[in-house]
Amino acid sequence: MVSSMGRHLVLTTFGESASKYVGAVIDGIPAGLPLSQEDLRFELGFRRTGRKLVSGRREEDNPDIVSGTYNGYTTGSPVTVMVRNSDPQPLLYRDVSHLPRPGHADLSFIKKYGRENWDYVGGGRSSARETLSRVIGGAVAKKLLMLAGTQVAAYLKSIGGRGDNDTVTFSEAMGSKRFPTRARNSEWDAEFSEIISRLFSEGDSAGGIVEVLASGVFPGMGDPVFWKIKSALASAIMSVPAATGFEYGLGFRSAGMKGSEASDSIVRDSSGDLRTERNLSGGILGGITTGSDIVVRCAFKPTSSIRKPAKTVDLDTMEPGSISVIGRHDPVVAVRGVAVAEAMVALVLADFYLYEGILPSSRISRAAAAEMEEKWKAYMKEYAQ
Amino acid sequence: MVSSMGRHLVLTTFGESASKYVGAVIDGIPAGLPLSQEDLRFELGFRRTGRKLVSGRREEDNPDIVSGTYNGYTTGSPVTVMVRNSDPQPLLYRDVSHLPRPGHADLSFIKKYGRENWDYVGGGRSSARETLSRVIGGAVAKKLLMLAGTQVAAYLKSIGGRGDNDTVTFSEAMGSKRFPTRARNSEWDAEFSEIISRLFSEGDSAGGIVEVLASGVFPGMGDPVFWKIKSALASAIMSVPAATGFEYGLGFRSAGMKGSEASDSIVRDSSGDLRTERNLSGGILGGITTGSDIVVRCAFKPTSSIRKPAKTVDLDTMEPGSISVIGRHDPVVAVRGVAVAEAMVALVLADFYLYEGILPSSRISRAAAAEMEEKWKAYMKEYAQ
Amino acid sequence: MVSSMGRHLVLTTFGESASKYVGAVIDGIPAGLPLSQEDLRFELGFRRTGRKLVSGRREEDNPDIVSGTYNGYTTGSPVTVMVRNSDPQPLLYRDVSHLPRPGHADLSFIKKYGRENWDYVGGGRSSARETLSRVIGGAVAKKLLMLAGTQVAAYLKSIGGRGDNDTVTFSEAMGSKRFPTRARNSEWDAEFSEIISRLFSEGDSAGGIVEVLASGVFPGMGDPVFWKIKSALASAIMSVPAATGFEYGLGFRSAGMKGSEASDSIVRDSSGDLRTERNLSGGILGGITTGSDIVVRCAFKPTSSIRKPAKTVDLDTMEPGSISVIGRHDPVVAVRGVAVAEAMVALVLADFYLYEGILPSSRISRAAAAEMEEKWKAYMKEYAQ
Amino acid sequence: MVSSMGRHLVLTTFGESASKYVGAVIDGIPAGLPLSQEDLRFELGFRRTGRKLVSGRREEDNPDIVSGTYNGYTTGSPVTVMVRNSDPQPLLYRDVSHLPRPGHADLSFIKKYGRENWDYVGGGRSSARETLSRVIGGAVAKKLLMLAGTQVAAYLKSIGGRGDNDTVTFSEAMGSKRFPTRARNSEWDAEFSEIISRLFSEGDSAGGIVEVLASGVFPGMGDPVFWKIKSALASAIMSVPAATGFEYGLGFRSAGMKGSEASDSIVRDSSGDLRTERNLSGGILGGITTGSDIVVRCAFKPTSSIRKPAKTVDLDTMEPGSISVIGRHDPVVAVRGVAVAEAMVALVLADFYLYEGILPSSRISRAAAAEMEEKWKAYMKEYAQ
Repeated sequence: MVSSMGRHLVLTTFGESASKYVGAVIDGIPAGLPLSQEDLRFELGFRRTGRKLVSGRREEDNPDIVSGTYNGYTTGSPVTVMVRNSDPQPLLYRDVSHLPRPGHADLSFIKKYGRENWDYVGGGRSSARETLSRVIGGAVAKKLLMLAGTQVAAYLKSIGGRGDNDTVTFSEAMGSKRFPTRARNSEWDAEFSEIISRLFSEGDSAGGIVEVLASGVFPGMGDPVFWKIKSALASAIMSVPAATGFEYGLGFRSAGMKGSEASDSIVRDSSGDLRTERNLSGGILGGITTGSDIVVRCAFKPTSSIRKPAKTVDLDTMEPGSISVIGRHDPVVAVRGVAVAEAMVALVLADFYLYEGILPSSRISRAAAAEMEEKWKAYMKEYAQ
Repeated sequence: MVSSMGRHLVLTTFGESASKYVGAVIDGIPAGLPLSQEDLRFELGFRRTGRKLVSGRREEDNPDIVSGTYNGYTTGSPVTVMVRNSDPQPLLYRDVSHLPRPGHADLSFIKKYGRENWDYVGGGRSSARETLSRVIGGAVAKKLLMLAGTQVAAYLKSIGGRGDNDTVTFSEAMGSKRFPTRARNSEWDAEFSEIISRLFSEGDSAGGIVEVLASGVFPGMGDPVFWKIKSALASAIMSVPAATGFEYGLGFRSAGMKGSEASDSIVRDSSGDLRTERNLSGGILGGITTGSDIVVRCAFKPTSSIRKPAKTVDLDTMEPGSISVIGRHDPVVAVRGVAVAEAMVALVLADFYLYEGILPSSRISRAAAAEMEEKWKAYMKEYAQ
Repeated sequence: MVSSMGRHLVLTTFGESASKYVGAVIDGIPAGLPLSQEDLRFELGFRRTGRKLVSGRREEDNPDIVSGTYNGYTTGSPVTVMVRNSDPQPLLYRDVSHLPRPGHADLSFIKKYGRENWDYVGGGRSSARETLSRVIGGAVAKKLLMLAGTQVAAYLKSIGGRGDNDTVTFSEAMGSKRFPTRARNSEWDAEFSEIISRLFSEGDSAGGIVEVLASGVFPGMGDPVFWKIKSALASAIMSVPAATGFEYGLGFRSAGMKGSEASDSIVRDSSGDLRTERNLSGGILGGITTGSDIVVRCAFKPTSSIRKPAKTVDLDTMEPGSISVIGRHDPVVAVRGVAVAEAMVALVLADFYLYEGILPSSRISRAAAAEMEEKWKAYMKEYAQ
Repeated sequence: MVSSMGRHLVLTTFGESASKYVGAVIDGIPAGLPLSQEDLRFELGFRRTGRKLVSGRREEDNPDIVSGTYNGYTTGSPVTVMVRNSDPQPLLYRDVSHLPRPGHADLSFIKKYGRENWDYVGGGRSSARETLSRVIGGAVAKKLLMLAGTQVAAYLKSIGGRGDNDTVTFSEAMGSKRFPTRARNSEWDAEFSEIISRLFSEGDSAGGIVEVLASGVFPGMGDPVFWKIKSALASAIMSVPAATGFEYGLGFRSAGMKGSEASDSIVRDSSGDLRTERNLSGGILGGITTGSDIVVRCAFKPTSSIRKPAKTVDLDTMEPGSISVIGRHDPVVAVRGVAVAEAMVALVLADFYLYEGILPSSRISRAAAAEMEEKWKAYMKEYAQ
């Protein structure tokens, strides 16, 4: 298995839903970055949002930094963060160990690793719980990016085809941090909440689209062949469970357009800098950042676990069987995907900033750290949940 | 710059439109694979298809294998292939060296590498000519895959929003190798040809969608976190110039669906093997191949170089300027993108097959090679252009 | 920082002497490998050997497997192992925070990461405690290798120039697991013990040479250019703290020889297989294994922390200062280096076996696992400490 | 096969002795580095030195830059360099195709790739001719390092045990560029020449030791675990054909010393900077550069091809056979190894400088380039051959 991503900032995730801990090792961080468990807990809060909508349950994931910091600053060593798994409930699942769930990794997992190695309690590494580690890595990446004046924000653009078709500014996307559904404003939040409630009561689920923006992006990140920033972003986004599509800028819409429609003039902005007029290419040209906001979108499929019975094959008898999921599941995995997609984009960008030498590789001065930390504190205050 | 892709089968491309050669170094090939220049020339033929439609010109790209084979077989050493660039035409371009072209890499290239290092004659590494090297790498990958009974075929699904919405079988996709537009049958080929001619006469261009299928896929390729096969495919596809979006299976459509609609039962097929009933997830579950056909799609934006004048900034005066492209350009870059996307999928799959030990890492027996070569010859005969 | 090694079997280590835990994430293990904490504890025992010689103290390092196994078998997921650090003793060290220790990483660490980020309590990531994680990784690697009939054993060849010049067989090297100094027999063990005691009472230290052998090596591992097995072994061995030199086969001795002396005929062995007559090249020709035993040696410098005062510069006053180490330190770091070097060779070999497809990438059958486990149990019984 | 090295500056080599070309793709070079074929030819000159000693033959290797430069400057694209192989002489070798040569890669090559894929004409990728590509890469690396005020020089320290035991300064090492044997002064050059002539007339060969120094090294390069600079240097040096050992600073000598002897005080130098008094650790502490000169040594075994008959096995009959080499071969491969080892150290250092952001990743200003080029021209003038 390959559980690491990144070329300079390397995130390694570990843990399954049935293991004692899930966690992350984040390596390649310069020394001198202020980092606390509170920072991580804050970001993990956004990943939990969706849950509250349907279950009211408030499970607290308590991230423990067990290496890589000293007196509240990173030391240049890998930062390791552990989150204890609550006890799995084998009884709840035991009766399904012979029934691979449609839409899940079960079928391909069994073919690859063998049924005898299949951890059917919770889906093993394919469990959504692994994304905790990504959000933890994303928190570190965001603090690094903030040193360079760069920010990342995602929001939920649509659910089941019903959604928000406007072009959204970075600060609008940021606003989604105030809403449980991660819609970008209260109107959409209300609508999405209603859809989710309805799906929940129907025992059904729906797909959704998440848009991620980055502002204050350094121009010139990425390069023209295999280390295109769009290529790295696509790889990271598509590694998220349930992600079925990736696009940037006009994306798939551009496939239906004429060149004369999709043309985006080069102009000078108020500061004299060259940029494109409409940013139709999502801040990326030739695979390299232009300095305009990055705009990418990710399609999430509907949650595969639904109450409605699904047909499968009974592994014991090899006869047709049927499975319906009783536990609490998010009807729209995309809601939780907002925080995960946001983390992935932050991780990719921070990796490029380190790789290209925009962020220092060895250490951050106390002065730069203090300036960043002040902004970070303001961000945490503004979006406190 | 990062000019290499792959973990075990590593393709390195080099060359710009203004350099003496473009080429590829393909490393990680086991010894004993039959490989000839004819094989490469055959595959390069598919990349040229679009050209013929509008220009009638038939430029022959002559690939020269300069290392890595001995008596017609690979030796385990890196295979290096060179293709000479015809003389660039600096006069044709000279007058535009102060005018970065909208939609091209020029703007971001200048910001990154500096105007003084900008090879404005043809776009440097961002030139579509770099994709020659990918198709060469793809030819080697296809021969490797054929050893394992796996094949890859792409076709043009739509142009400018007009296209083919059906689910297409692998052999239908394969059929596109008979048509200049790489549509999957003569009806669509006729329609696409007409659209292209019209665009050409209007001096405009259009985007398009390419679908790539793989059949005979070994189940269990890829793993559940960062080395998901969908992640590697996305990265490879999005590294293609002008690619703006990637999806697999239902892709973005799934974002608009309910779980009950998108559900895909697990069944036993005639050979007793488990598979999904409708293959809605494009042969991939949990990031791992299921054994069903892989189905991915790539959105291409409209060719940015069009005859209609586009607004830019004059780098000498920093005043607004205008540029219109006079040379011959493909109105629909997606046509040529078919061969490139096909190559990228073949490269990714062959890399996984080697990485997972499905294909031997050190050497292929003469017997296995002969069996494969026979099939390859049949393929070349069937789709001779 | 780069805390990962390996191409297919990837060991990531984390933790400092002042952090809560040190540990390892071992990724790329196929599913189905039996693995218990007892296996790890057994191997960690060999790393502690030297300690007992001089201090009598028996600190128990208790490895906790927190992810990656299920019912006693690996699942294909990364195996994470944590070892809690006992409470550091800041008082013991506080007075030296202004005195970088000669021979240690302090000087270069301060230049790289800044004094403000210098974890002077125990040397941060340069602490020998990090090598715990390597021995843990090595234990996993050894079990993988045992599946292929391959074993690794190291022993202490010399201390301070006094040592064992004979050519040693694999089983003689294995015998060192019975002696506290990891000498290969009781005579050398007695002599080394005496040297160590004398050094301890003098407050001095000495260097040493460790030899590592591997038997049952699969021929054809490694390849002829940058992934030579000697290159990977050198990188791994030289990453061990205090390692100052690496050689294989005749090594530096070959530099003083004539070709006619160093010539090693090719012969057929009793089984008809081709091999070299004298194995002067340590099982490696052209960077590729021949199938004969691998033989490599590693030079360790004397422990830098000695009781005799050493001159340094006081960072507060920038005036000359002096430091002498009071705590308990191994006079001969090479003793403990035996287990670490052995682990590094096992990790490198297992990585190649996976990379080349000799070991299965996805899963091990229960039958193969059971056969291996029986041998492993016999090994643990024979060398119980 | 893995034919690439480096993390940021990536050298890929290709070609065998029997292929049309050997060459190199050097990727990760910032735009704006002046680079000409003359630069490469100059450095290749040092690799030829040993040849002249014994054969008088002057084969000119003509490096052709076929991509990656524009108007004499790098563009940020991979620089590809081709060197045509003169026609191989199959007749000369044909009669030995059934006789694997002792000491060569033949035996392990046949076991790995199969006899049917064995390019016995010249040894395939194991041919010393591959090192041409390394020296080409080294030339680029040296120009990059010169931007940062860093230089690398190697010299031949001993042949067959007879040699120069003094500590050598960087400028003394540099002086070796004036002597055919790459000894550091005329006395040693005379002695080494005589030894080589004698070996040649005896039909024998000898090993040797090469020492490589780097001056003006930036402190803080490398990090404390697996990306130690000593680890990267060991890997690179041991990837050179015929290299059997690596050490830095005191190296293997330290294994025979006491801590009190090997202690190296920390002092302030005239500029107030902290450094070690005697540089016994070869400019590296804790795996990180201190800023003092780097000092590493490489052991080369005797050339395996000698006139004296060596015993082998006849692959056709599987009976004992005998082979003696008639062609012209360097009796001391270490002579030519000087240029290769020097190149490897330059490549490793330049990679770290880019990785750590000491050298710019994207582009070099014309001013910095001009300043460097002036120094480079002076260097070429001073050591013109």
